[in-house]
Amino acid sequence: MHIEELTRKASMELLAESRLGHLACANNGQPYVTPCYFAYHDQYIYGFSTAGQKIEWLRKNPLACLQVDKVSSFQKWTSIIVLGRYEELSKTGESQEARERAYKLLHQHEFWWEPGYTRTVLHGEARPLEPVYYRVSVDEITGHKATPN
Amino acid sequence: MHIEELTRKASMELLAESRLGHLACANNGQPYVTPCYFAYHDQYIYGFSTAGQKIEWLRKNPLACLQVDKVSSFQKWTSIIVLGRYEELSKTGESQEARERAYKLLHQHEFWWEPGYTRTVLHGEARPLEPVYYRVSVDEITGHKATPN
Repeated sequence: MHIEELTRKASMELLAESRLGHLACANNGQPYVTPCYFAYHDQYIYGFSTAGQKIEWLRKNPLACLQVDKVSSFQKWTSIIVLGRYEELSKTGESQEARERAYKLLHQHEFWWEPGYTRTVLHGEARPLEPVYYRVSVDEITGHKATPN
Repeated sequence: MHIEELTRKASMELLAESRLGHLACANNGQPYVTPCYFAYHDQYIYGFSTAGQKIEWLRKNPLACLQVDKVSSFQKWTSIIVLGRYEELSKTGESQEARERAYKLLHQHEFWWEPGYTRTVLHGEARPLEPVYYRVSVDEITGHKATPN
């Protein structure tokens, strides 16, 4: 197997064509990572969630990391890592336009809202649903590609 | 789609049968997440890497998060999250036995060492290879399961 760096262009292309990734946040030094559905547009990835631990932590510390991979086999894969800042998109004010963009981008997938908006039964009680649209700036992006020898 | 919590037993079962996950670390509030190959044994997940950004950050701050999922479709998946502490396993001293265990567990897969040990060509130069065995304690584990309605 041979691993090489992806160019910025190739990394951005994989980001733009992907919809599923892993988003990490951190609170008081404790990292936390969850799968997420997203869509890329013009230097931001847009996502949707309901308020919960991930959103609480990102509100406290907006530094985020998104990892996306495309795996064909154990020896053939591409993986990119984005570092950026979380920004919540409210219904009014400056972020209204970005929120509308998030909605348009995300709802191109039939089930886009479900993982974020489905009632999760916790300890026998459905948790309250507070819909949250957000975006993360693509401040740094790096990528690697593995190919079999 | 319906999302419910997994029991601790079901979460531990998924962890024990899995080999690929996403490991997050954090440095000065910046989270960082990479795919990782691992093997579970007795309250620890064992992994192998070469020294690089992930290992540097985990040496500074051992708080780690491992996420593992098993996805059948967009509406049918299981996902678990482990919080724990990173511990490096040296060739000598107290961690020698754990390092031998890591080797035995990991090398059950033919290509286990490749993503960690393959020379990565960065800026035209192969990066130095310092093999690192580590483990992360399973201090907390939670899981969720989605099923179509």
